[in-house]
Amino acid sequence: MKTQARFYHAGCPVCISAEQTVAGALDPARFDVEVVHLGQSTQRLVEAEAAGVQSVPALVIDQQVFHINHGADLSALK
Amino acid sequence: MKTQARFYHAGCPVCISAEQTVAGALDPARFDVEVVHLGQSTQRLVEAEAAGVQSVPALVIDQQVFHINHGADLSALK
Repeated sequence: MKTQARFYHAGCPVCISAEQTVAGALDPARFDVEVVHLGQSTQRLVEAEAAGVQSVPALVIDQQVFHINHGADLSALK
Repeated sequence: MKTQARFYHAGCPVCISAEQTVAGALDPARFDVEVVHLGQSTQRLVEAEAAGVQSVPALVIDQQVFHINHGADLSALK
């Protein structure tokens, strides 16, 4: 069974670079990567916050949050 | 030909989590991942700085630097 990875972003340039390079570099044999645009899917902000996401872009794997560089704080998306 | 990815760290808990989960999640079919412990290999600080690394843990892929969470500033390792 593959591990679910979630990549949260907000469409910012920093986000897109991280999405294309880091999220896109994960091993497809081991990970299902879901890309969530929090600027568009604002209803998922609650879920992202609950997972511990403080800023985007962020990658959540195995309930661990990895903030990758810094595009925007989550509070700026509300 | 595989893409070279470099994961710079300093042995801190934040670094180890990022190493095991993010660096370890990269697709081995596409990436050669070199793990560099800057606390031990201090001679490689110059190379890391030149690549744009400001803090560890950091992942460098395709000349792009991704600072993943924050363990320590590079200046603290000198």
